[in-house]
Amino acid sequence: MNTEGQPFIYLDHAATSWPKPPEVTDAVVQATLHDAANPGRGSHAMAVRASRILFETRKQLGKLFHIKNPNDIAFTSNTTMSLNMAIKGWLKPGDHVIATTVEHNSVRRPLYYLEQTIGIEVSYIESDLTGKLKVETVEAAIRSNTTLIIVNHSSNLLGTIMPVADIGEIARKHGVKLLVDAAQSAGILPIDVEAMGIDMLAFPGHKGLLGPQGTGGLYIAPNIEIEPLLHGGTGSQSEALHQPHVRPDRYEAGTQNTPGLAGLQMGVRHVLEETVASIHEREWGLSQRLLEGLSRLNAVRLMGPGVGEERTGIVAFNVEGIDPSELSFILDQHYNIAVRAGFHCTPMAHATAGTSDTGAIRASVGVYTTTDEVDTFLHSIKEITEQYGI
Amino acid sequence: MNTEGQPFIYLDHAATSWPKPPEVTDAVVQATLHDAANPGRGSHAMAVRASRILFETRKQLGKLFHIKNPNDIAFTSNTTMSLNMAIKGWLKPGDHVIATTVEHNSVRRPLYYLEQTIGIEVSYIESDLTGKLKVETVEAAIRSNTTLIIVNHSSNLLGTIMPVADIGEIARKHGVKLLVDAAQSAGILPIDVEAMGIDMLAFPGHKGLLGPQGTGGLYIAPNIEIEPLLHGGTGSQSEALHQPHVRPDRYEAGTQNTPGLAGLQMGVRHVLEETVASIHEREWGLSQRLLEGLSRLNAVRLMGPGVGEERTGIVAFNVEGIDPSELSFILDQHYNIAVRAGFHCTPMAHATAGTSDTGAIRASVGVYTTTDEVDTFLHSIKEITEQYGI
Repeated sequence: MNTEGQPFIYLDHAATSWPKPPEVTDAVVQATLHDAANPGRGSHAMAVRASRILFETRKQLGKLFHIKNPNDIAFTSNTTMSLNMAIKGWLKPGDHVIATTVEHNSVRRPLYYLEQTIGIEVSYIESDLTGKLKVETVEAAIRSNTTLIIVNHSSNLLGTIMPVADIGEIARKHGVKLLVDAAQSAGILPIDVEAMGIDMLAFPGHKGLLGPQGTGGLYIAPNIEIEPLLHGGTGSQSEALHQPHVRPDRYEAGTQNTPGLAGLQMGVRHVLEETVASIHEREWGLSQRLLEGLSRLNAVRLMGPGVGEERTGIVAFNVEGIDPSELSFILDQHYNIAVRAGFHCTPMAHATAGTSDTGAIRASVGVYTTTDEVDTFLHSIKEITEQYGI
Repeated sequence: MNTEGQPFIYLDHAATSWPKPPEVTDAVVQATLHDAANPGRGSHAMAVRASRILFETRKQLGKLFHIKNPNDIAFTSNTTMSLNMAIKGWLKPGDHVIATTVEHNSVRRPLYYLEQTIGIEVSYIESDLTGKLKVETVEAAIRSNTTLIIVNHSSNLLGTIMPVADIGEIARKHGVKLLVDAAQSAGILPIDVEAMGIDMLAFPGHKGLLGPQGTGGLYIAPNIEIEPLLHGGTGSQSEALHQPHVRPDRYEAGTQNTPGLAGLQMGVRHVLEETVASIHEREWGLSQRLLEGLSRLNAVRLMGPGVGEERTGIVAFNVEGIDPSELSFILDQHYNIAVRAGFHCTPMAHATAGTSDTGAIRASVGVYTTTDEVDTFLHSIKEITEQYGI
């Protein structure tokens, strides 16, 4: 058996979305061919066009996340860079941080690094097996030296949606800042930084926002100053020894990714047009189809919230008797289906879910995923389990 | 007068190269359409293709810079990020650093930041008016606590070529590491990290290497360990709290820019085919034409090395009686010519050259610049000076 003639089914949207809307690729090409001078460097017409692309992309992101001043958004190359900027730029020696046990390594590792070097304290709030969190436990963990709460909006393994707005309320009440990792929610779940009490929002450009890889960003509330992650040229205030204070320059040293950000702009426009609510509704429907189909198979052990519950389009599971990496290999080689197997850079979430030994298979849907594709995937899993006699 | 019908002349290659070779844009598109899963995350065919793109790009860069093990190259989003990673990752409290007075703010500002925070000492070696440096002054500045010498290979303002190999020899002799800022030399001047004694090489993807914006890299010699700038997921050793030690993962947390790096690969291949020697020779010829033409105009004050001397394709100058930003505005609006005016993020180099008050006009050529374009530019400058009656 080989995959010839079988349509390719991509269920790895939580890693990066694919395909991109055609207008995203077009915008990358058009910017490369006509506009990609160095934005903010030089005042010639092409450099001005490049600057305008960045400005317009920022504006669209502002619209999506309800950010009043687009200049409070700094571009980065990915969410990891955004989270490093927020965490290392905000925390000081002696600070206490609250995070959850379902955070990604892009939160856990910077925190561990700061624990070992400048000396901070970290409390990881435990969630239940499905990743759900009681907000009271967050409030109970606040100490006098707590300066930051970090939570991912949706677990990248379990698909659980975290009660960000409730945590935001608690954070505000106690004068603690809230950093949200929107790696799995930007463009997928409604985000309103003001209404949800988000002080810093780290987001990728290449997942739910449908932009190219190499893009991402960090929103920093106007009343917060953090130390920039990068020091260097900004095309402004060249004579100053320190990083300029004016935004976005302060947090954007070096040449920006003009074509990538032109593409991201089109991705965000696509999301705004389709609306986040309708994207979430459709992806939720697909996740339910996945859950229901998988739950009919005896050997399947599902992770995360159950049928009927709120979640994103991430469905992780294990099949008893088949190693996840073997299963993903069979799906790839024999069925032309792309899923991800392993630990997904979140060992804590696996500990939470009781899958630290095995890892898991993660199927994640995107804006272009169809019910037919989900059904083919379900049929494939069924066929494999039958062939394994389980 | 307007620019309608006048061909566009781009002389801002030192900011970013444009246009890109057609195969660069093609590669970006092809990778976006067919291969841009998340490299290193997941083992499905598309993720493997993405990983291969990164590997092949690394290999081509290794060939260009004579780097034996391509995994000693880490990808970044621009030279500023590379320099921040090298400087902040290597230096420890109490270290002494030697740099030059013609460094870019992407070196000066990280050093100033470390001076103010962890406490390091910095000596800036003075060059002559044209940016040239006596290597003896570098050796004389070495102290017992000197751990790093930083030098740009070519000044981004003056076009001066620094004696990197000689400095490398001195650095080796004294057991000091050498970090080279190749922002203006990668793809433009021959670079051999072993022969030149370079321990860390920071380079952009989007200038002389002809790749897309949003790409760059840092070579870190195999015997050097630095603290990563970014901590986070690498798709490997998920369970470890610290950043994995295996390269390139250690220095590449988060999702990489697959389409951008596919484009960069084609840019590097283009450079390798044309050869750096022939690119440098042609750009040197164009710089001579610029210098000779400009030197015939009474009001022009040229900066950097004179006619006949070694330099890159960067020619900065001032016209007495016309503000640089005014001149660049006229060139843009009336002649459709793009140059950069201002301080070019290097106030120290302006102090060196005596242009701290005015800034300068910088015309910089690239692989596609023609002698006709240079002549049209020279003619425009002449016409403008005549109109100003100077």
